[in-house]
Amino acid sequence: MGLTYQMKMKIPFDMADMNGHLKLPDVILLSLQVSGMQSIDLGISDKDMLERYNLVWIITDYDIDVVRLPHFAEEITIETEALTYNRLFCYRRFTIFDESGQAIIQMLGTFVLMDRDSRKVHPVEPEIVAPYQSAFSKKLMRGPKYPDLEHATSKDYHVRFYDLDMNGHVNNSKYLDWIFEVMGADFLTQHIPKKIHLKYVREVRPGGMIASSYDLDGLKSNHQIASDGQVNAQALVTWQKLKKEN
Amino acid sequence: MGLTYQMKMKIPFDMADMNGHLKLPDVILLSLQVSGMQSIDLGISDKDMLERYNLVWIITDYDIDVVRLPHFAEEITIETEALTYNRLFCYRRFTIFDESGQAIIQMLGTFVLMDRDSRKVHPVEPEIVAPYQSAFSKKLMRGPKYPDLEHATSKDYHVRFYDLDMNGHVNNSKYLDWIFEVMGADFLTQHIPKKIHLKYVREVRPGGMIASSYDLDGLKSNHQIASDGQVNAQALVTWQKLKKEN
Repeated sequence: MGLTYQMKMKIPFDMADMNGHLKLPDVILLSLQVSGMQSIDLGISDKDMLERYNLVWIITDYDIDVVRLPHFAEEITIETEALTYNRLFCYRRFTIFDESGQAIIQMLGTFVLMDRDSRKVHPVEPEIVAPYQSAFSKKLMRGPKYPDLEHATSKDYHVRFYDLDMNGHVNNSKYLDWIFEVMGADFLTQHIPKKIHLKYVREVRPGGMIASSYDLDGLKSNHQIASDGQVNAQALVTWQKLKKEN
Repeated sequence: MGLTYQMKMKIPFDMADMNGHLKLPDVILLSLQVSGMQSIDLGISDKDMLERYNLVWIITDYDIDVVRLPHFAEEITIETEALTYNRLFCYRRFTIFDESGQAIIQMLGTFVLMDRDSRKVHPVEPEIVAPYQSAFSKKLMRGPKYPDLEHATSKDYHVRFYDLDMNGHVNNSKYLDWIFEVMGADFLTQHIPKKIHLKYVREVRPGGMIASSYDLDGLKSNHQIASDGQVNAQALVTWQKLKKEN
């Protein structure tokens, strides 16, 4: 087991959607803040990684389970733990607990190291991950097969200036934003995700347009983000109908 | 002088733009978090206002002065103070200080109270603002005249699900997002605002489209957000050229 790191917070007004729920893209943003804080705490911040090794952490997959979404003003604890690593992949858990200690969201993220100059994946060196005290394990955690889209509905979105981070890359959370947005307000006020598989395939380039496509079969949707004729991300979402709350 | 309230924070990665600067719309979001926290602290949260008085705080104008924008990982302190009130308006200051105590952003916000059912402005009752210890002053702080646009450049934006808050309203910060976005990435990587006057005229309706228009004369731009043939917001921005930093 790796070291755990926690952040406690209250959901601010601007992170709540029309249902009063924490916005899904903010779940990713907040989680990455917490793992970033753990790295700083352990003396191996993203900045250190760049300066010492010329390496950047990249996320390739997310696997998200949602029991329920925290609501505005609710106090949550976000916990993260670097679980295991192998030659190429590091697996990290994020768990969101409510005030009673119930795990309401669980995320598994797959991280790889990328050389900043060659833009190629760099093997995970034990020295780099040692501070997290995660275990070496040959076991690969594989995502699902993402089937092709059938009868897809599609919508185009501009890649905006504020979608880009300091490195000129589209923020990870933005893909989830496009994946949800295309479902429309009617659907999103009546459903929340139960399970999300998300795979980042190829980076979206700044400045252009992306197409967010999906097909929906009952409570399962199959998603694709594409630009310039190439797939950027794929996702499979299982939805749950929202019970009316007070 | 009113009571002051402070929040200290470090700029997280996801709030930094391509220049490494805190995104302007996040300045508004963070400031409103701080005034919200002050209200909770004083026992008159937005929720209390609704339950006790059926009233909602609405912002009508912002006046923003930027010396410089804080950068990623920088520690800032956001301070707020309810300055004065009169029969209809409450004036609130937000100041962002850097670690050396230098004020780097100053905002003046004009707040009014709206009755939730009639959607009409409600007079400010001394009882409501008493906890903030702000002074009564007849003096009105008037914004500038917003001239008509000439030779405007315009772009259309969808109002997205995640642009809406719990009350189904477009978040205040979103207008600033549209006002900046239309300037384009080239301009925004070379300029930051020096002064912003922003006036909310009429609420943008969920679900539709808005047009963000502007004309630029030297380092001054004149902006308009419009939808369904009506003006929703107006802004005047004076820009400063960005000095290249390390």
